[in-house]
Amino acid sequence: MNATTPAHPQRTIRVALGERSYDIVIGPGLVDEVGPRIAALLPGARAAIVTDENVARLHLERLTLSLDAAGVEHRAIVLPAGETTKSYAGLTRVVEAIIEGRFERGDAVLAFGGGVIGDLAGFASAVVRRGMRFVQMPTSLLAQVDSSVGGKTGINSPQGKNLVGAFHQPTLVLADTALLDTLPPREFAAGYAEIVKYGLIDRPDFFEWLETNREDIFAGTDALIDAIAISCEAKAAVVAADETEQDSRALLNLGHTFGHALEKTVRYEASRLVHGEGVAIGICLAHRFCAARGLAPEEDARRVEAHFAAAGLPTRIQHIAGETPPIADLMDAIAQDKKVTRSALTFILTHGIGKAFIARNVDPADVGDFLAEELLP
Amino acid sequence: MNATTPAHPQRTIRVALGERSYDIVIGPGLVDEVGPRIAALLPGARAAIVTDENVARLHLERLTLSLDAAGVEHRAIVLPAGETTKSYAGLTRVVEAIIEGRFERGDAVLAFGGGVIGDLAGFASAVVRRGMRFVQMPTSLLAQVDSSVGGKTGINSPQGKNLVGAFHQPTLVLADTALLDTLPPREFAAGYAEIVKYGLIDRPDFFEWLETNREDIFAGTDALIDAIAISCEAKAAVVAADETEQDSRALLNLGHTFGHALEKTVRYEASRLVHGEGVAIGICLAHRFCAARGLAPEEDARRVEAHFAAAGLPTRIQHIAGETPPIADLMDAIAQDKKVTRSALTFILTHGIGKAFIARNVDPADVGDFLAEELLP
Ligand SMILES: NC(=O)c1ccc[n+]([C@@H]2O[C@H](COP(=O)([O-])OP(=O)(O)OC[C@H]3O[C@@H](n4cnc5c(N)ncnc54)[C@H](O)[C@@H]3O)[C@@H](O)[C@H]2O)c1
Ligand SMILES: NC(=O)c1ccc[n+]([C@@H]2O[C@H](COP(=O)([O-])OP(=O)(O)OC[C@H]3O[C@@H](n4cnc5c(N)ncnc54)[C@H](O)[C@@H]3O)[C@@H](O)[C@H]2O)c1
Ligand SMILES: [Zn+2]
Ligand SMILES: [Zn+2]
Repeated sequence: MNATTPAHPQRTIRVALGERSYDIVIGPGLVDEVGPRIAALLPGARAAIVTDENVARLHLERLTLSLDAAGVEHRAIVLPAGETTKSYAGLTRVVEAIIEGRFERGDAVLAFGGGVIGDLAGFASAVVRRGMRFVQMPTSLLAQVDSSVGGKTGINSPQGKNLVGAFHQPTLVLADTALLDTLPPREFAAGYAEIVKYGLIDRPDFFEWLETNREDIFAGTDALIDAIAISCEAKAAVVAADETEQDSRALLNLGHTFGHALEKTVRYEASRLVHGEGVAIGICLAHRFCAARGLAPEEDARRVEAHFAAAGLPTRIQHIAGETPPIADLMDAIAQDKKVTRSALTFILTHGIGKAFIARNVDPADVGDFLAEELLP
Repeated sequence: MNATTPAHPQRTIRVALGERSYDIVIGPGLVDEVGPRIAALLPGARAAIVTDENVARLHLERLTLSLDAAGVEHRAIVLPAGETTKSYAGLTRVVEAIIEGRFERGDAVLAFGGGVIGDLAGFASAVVRRGMRFVQMPTSLLAQVDSSVGGKTGINSPQGKNLVGAFHQPTLVLADTALLDTLPPREFAAGYAEIVKYGLIDRPDFFEWLETNREDIFAGTDALIDAIAISCEAKAAVVAADETEQDSRALLNLGHTFGHALEKTVRYEASRLVHGEGVAIGICLAHRFCAARGLAPEEDARRVEAHFAAAGLPTRIQHIAGETPPIADLMDAIAQDKKVTRSALTFILTHGIGKAFIARNVDPADVGDFLAEELLP
């Protein structure tokens, strides 16, 4: 940045949850402010940094410099990158390292990484000594717009994604947008899928704005900061209305029942499918399912698909590299997904762009038929 | 019971925690009421019964008869008895069995056993799908007067007891006092140690009443039901004032810092020491530590020790069968116990019977010296 460019804006979003309220701060360079911010918010607290090998290699030194400068004692727990780290074994490893480091309830677990690290570290912070403080420093786009906000933490069961976890709100979220410069393009696009999701749920204007500004966002201009801030605002509003997903929070799962099933059938192999890609396909499936049933305009399903495709995201099951997952496996994974209530399938469906709704009685046979059509050669 | 004995009383204690409030019902024969009570409280819910091999062999059939009669679908997960079941492996086993059984968030995990089963099943119910309903049916005296009340759930870490867990309140607690008839006498005495604890914390009259009624309680008369009800009342009051142990709830740990350290140094071998025995020794140590430092009358320490001894409980470290644990190991376990804040030792100390208090700055050297004196031959 030179003297004539205006400073990038720093944006703050408040998640309103009574005594569990907290700020999300968004902007470039926040990694250099972590130390003073933690010292101010949690005086005397130590920090157990949880991160993965990629993020540690690229950015950990800068983070620890900031903590050192502010006199915040720390220790880093570095895990292999990837979804398989979000497991019982990963949890045990993090929990035992935190205990070993003699961190106490008033100390902070600092998640420094993507959604995998945030979910895992957050869950560990929820259960060590029945609850420690938790600070999120999301480094992937997906984590900055979605997983770091709202307090859902957890790990995967061999039987399905995110089946084990806790609601545990962070004390602070710091989204350093400059860290995204090192994010692989495929991961950037995957995170973008969750941004689009907010427009599709109930913000049609935002979706239109994305249609216009997509290239600027991918170029990393201030439009990116705006897109992240609006996404956090959207998510914070949903979470404030229904923290523990008794009802309306389920809307955030648009595309996720299909998406999780796809991730499961490819056994979470990132080379074939990452979470945001599963969500992109899942959202397209949800829109086409609704269009085919006359619930939503065909035109909207096409617009959604075109937008994801322009962003370089997959939109059909067939776009997944390798063998197409069998329908039986998909249906099995769908039934085991946690959005089930007394065995009727709950899906997030839509009446069109910005008009998602919760459907509690979707007939599994309808879904099976639809998937069969989708997979016709 | 014949026609001339009056019916045993059924007592109900309310734990006042706002929207998380619940009842503890105490009395003989409640196992036959489980089905209708769950059906009334959680209509349509299924029950995942978690139990251990001893309790299953003796009482599971009667429990399932009651559930069947009320039309509550169920499945039982039967685990080996003993503290080692409260482990990562035990947790994984219970969690995966619950998921496998396709239980949902509105279904109930039903803990049917002692404190080990209650803590483990409660923690599983807190984390499966980020929180299911939870019903406690405590079958040991210790579980009826202590562990089933208050929402502390968890497992042990290889580094120490109860270091991993959650606060998760039950929806209902049913303490069937008739089930205690099959409890081994040593386990009964161990549970009695926690009853005595409530008197020693802040109910000197209750302690006196126990001095008078101990034999009736051990004989299983109505005095037993009274003792359990007063204990639950005492614990419920503490929990209502400080649910997540920010402060005063720590009083419930009277004797537990020493007790946990003893349990750890004998590697949780029940043949050498069960939890309540560790608590009995720990409470005696706390009273003698305070008496030696002039904080409490010597006479009170002697009265406490005499009462535990009369109940058949150990009162000194040397009473533990086998080799006496080395002081260094004990001190290490004490420092790792979770009642630490920024490295000063927090202990529950006492000014005498019914006058326990939280001491936040106990000097580890003092504790070490005291233990050395205790262990003089
Ligand atoms: N808790 C929630 O509410 C919530 C919401 C959405 C998704 N999730 C979870 O989030 C996970 C997906 O998150 P994700 O996509 O961030 O995955 P991730 O954590 O695996 O990160 C993706 C990849 O990007 C790398 N990476 C991260 N930041 C980087 C950076 N700045 N530079 C270079 N590389 C970087 C990581 O090492 C990893 O290889 C899933 O497990 C999903 O279930 C949770
Ligand atoms: N959550 C809390 O607030 C809290 C409080 C105190 C203790 N605890 C925990 O509780 C545990 C100790 O509980 P416990 O003493 O009940 O141990 P336990 O569950 O191991 O039960 C003791 C023994 O009695 C047997 N048993 C239980 N009920 C029986 C019955 N009716 N008939 C015959 N046998 C029976 C069990 O099989 C076991 O062998 C410890 O892990 C301790 O940490 C938790
Ligand atoms: Zn997602
Ligand atoms: Zn105890």
